[in-house]
Amino acid sequence: MKVVLAPAPVRGFRLAGVSAGLKTQAGAKDLGLIAAERPCPAAAVFSANQVRAAPVYATIDRIRAGRLQAIVANSGCANSFTGKPGLKLAEASCAAVAEALGCSPRLVAPSSTGVIGHLYDLAKFRAGVREAAHALSEDGLEDFARAIMTTDTRPKMASTSLRLGGAKVTIAGAVKGVGMISPHMATMLGYVLTDAAASSAELRDALKAALPGSFNAITVDGDMSTNDTVIVMASGAAENRPLRGRDLEAFNRAIAAICAALARELVADGEGATKLVTVEVRGARTSADAERCARQIANSPLVKTAFFGCDPNVGRILMAAGSSGAAVQPDRLVLSIGGIRVAARGALLIAALGAAQEKMRAREFDVTLDLRLGAARKTILTCDLSYDYVRINAEYTT
Amino acid sequence: MKVVLAPAPVRGFRLAGVSAGLKTQAGAKDLGLIAAERPCPAAAVFSANQVRAAPVYATIDRIRAGRLQAIVANSGCANSFTGKPGLKLAEASCAAVAEALGCSPRLVAPSSTGVIGHLYDLAKFRAGVREAAHALSEDGLEDFARAIMTTDTRPKMASTSLRLGGAKVTIAGAVKGVGMISPHMATMLGYVLTDAAASSAELRDALKAALPGSFNAITVDGDMSTNDTVIVMASGAAENRPLRGRDLEAFNRAIAAICAALARELVADGEGATKLVTVEVRGARTSADAERCARQIANSPLVKTAFFGCDPNVGRILMAAGSSGAAVQPDRLVLSIGGIRVAARGALLIAALGAAQEKMRAREFDVTLDLRLGAARKTILTCDLSYDYVRINAEYTT
Repeated sequence: MKVVLAPAPVRGFRLAGVSAGLKTQAGAKDLGLIAAERPCPAAAVFSANQVRAAPVYATIDRIRAGRLQAIVANSGCANSFTGKPGLKLAEASCAAVAEALGCSPRLVAPSSTGVIGHLYDLAKFRAGVREAAHALSEDGLEDFARAIMTTDTRPKMASTSLRLGGAKVTIAGAVKGVGMISPHMATMLGYVLTDAAASSAELRDALKAALPGSFNAITVDGDMSTNDTVIVMASGAAENRPLRGRDLEAFNRAIAAICAALARELVADGEGATKLVTVEVRGARTSADAERCARQIANSPLVKTAFFGCDPNVGRILMAAGSSGAAVQPDRLVLSIGGIRVAARGALLIAALGAAQEKMRAREFDVTLDLRLGAARKTILTCDLSYDYVRINAEYTT
Repeated sequence: MKVVLAPAPVRGFRLAGVSAGLKTQAGAKDLGLIAAERPCPAAAVFSANQVRAAPVYATIDRIRAGRLQAIVANSGCANSFTGKPGLKLAEASCAAVAEALGCSPRLVAPSSTGVIGHLYDLAKFRAGVREAAHALSEDGLEDFARAIMTTDTRPKMASTSLRLGGAKVTIAGAVKGVGMISPHMATMLGYVLTDAAASSAELRDALKAALPGSFNAITVDGDMSTNDTVIVMASGAAENRPLRGRDLEAFNRAIAAICAALARELVADGEGATKLVTVEVRGARTSADAERCARQIANSPLVKTAFFGCDPNVGRILMAAGSSGAAVQPDRLVLSIGGIRVAARGALLIAALGAAQEKMRAREFDVTLDLRLGAARKTILTCDLSYDYVRINAEYTT
């Protein structure tokens, strides 16, 4: 199974992305639509933020039944912290899609991303939905991916195919980030479609199993959005046999691989990011320690600015590890950057810093901290903190 | 009692700050010395980071006896993560001071700040100590404050006088920051001197009581240094009566006021900071909730970049509150910026945003979030996240 960072048609689904005038930039795509031929098994995971957006509530409400026929996602406005008017707007948006597609509004899941605290214009949204319904195409994943972008610099997609249960099965997905990316589930919007025949319970299990190694293992800025949603839908058009044993395992692995590829794309396109850094903590006393320590390093502004400056700043990495709450013994740990050992036996290996700095000039590198206190490990993908992060977030506005 | 952000002589102490060549910039002051006429009661608090610097261990070792006669503090090198050679260097540094002043090395507390993982040159340090011992002066606080600066843009001092126990008592202090400023005690170096007659137990109590409202209530970047130390010393030269009842309360209030003024100076001079923001969370269900929520807002890179952009971005503040783990009900909370109510009853007050934005153009403003779920509150001082934060930390080097 090979995952490519490109779209692929998934039988049973048609997609579109259009400009509905919800973004301030004229002509920018801002409304995406996914339509299945018929109601499909579906599963989803959501933001752990207690301040949740209206469309998140609407999608949670619908996903309980385990079936969806359509997804509508807009950028330019998050419809979050909008109270009852926001909930009404989300419901009216579902109704508009249901009318355009001829399905029940209970089968339409809405997502919104953009500025918090505002409502979008329902008339524009309705007109956009009608236009999108006309534009639906099996090849529409890239247009959809463009329509959900906010500060993303590029559409982010991944796809793969494999043989399962006697049939060729395709899985493809799209995500948008790229600020408010952090712990706990997704902190972004992600959609994964497959033509496999799979139940909603199987989709739910596959998605939950995929999270620790994908959307829950990335960080851009340690912030958690109010609108995070990942939805997976299965059309069944591949007509594979029911997923059992090895087939089910292979399906789960494929879903996990697509989620991991999409998550990696999110970090690589993190706001202002110039580096993609894999932070691995191993040898931790407990899993909780490994996670805490890896996150503290991956989220530290001082560590992230050092990444931006290609500075093998061992002190900042150890400072972050030491303040994480994880058990850390400075005289035991071994730290490597880009495979170059830079600290061991309680001391900096100064002669190695030049070589480590060379490794940091690459677009991607690893930071590996072996605490040598146990067997637990955790890997977190992160990016650097650059001038552009500040520019984007100081200028992106209310 | 009036606290001024200026030095004042404190009877019984002489200070100096000289250039010992430990910093790369030629002629920059980098070695500060404080000398008491005789051994004095003293107390201290330290970094909670598990990766602690050698001078922190040396100071912890000495402060147990409750007495100090001298403090030596250098910038340019943190002597942290330097193993046994670092501990030896700290001891040798104390010995050099003891020799120059004619006191026991067990009465000398060392502090270091700067780059982690390196040792400083002991010969240069010794020569600097001799020079500083000759330069000691009652008016040396400002020179001392300059000698401990790293990325600080200005020396930071505060002083006050009051009548206590039948005598005029003076309290004066200096701090340095200004990165790695965050939760848990100090994350910086701070020194408070008084001529009051007070026991080490009284100093310890006064310092611990001062922390929650001063050094533990500030953040610049959520990172915690390995070298944080705050020391308070009392010469007794004021010859006040023993501190009892109201006198003791007044003394504690004065120490707290000096610590609060110094902590505020730290945030105001935070790396790249252009704004000083007071984040208050009130109406929280528990004190832990209030603290968690205030810190999450005060540390959020998205909130801090919005401060830099003078953007009344209610969504980011509520996102941070909602992800803090504190109990938050979006439909109950009231959010104000600069005293202007910008969110209430589950909705953004869009008409108020222009006025809030005007308030944010000032050098200082308040953000007040009333969760309306209880009676607990917490105030945290923070600053904005600017281009200069990135510049300083991407360029400040190994």
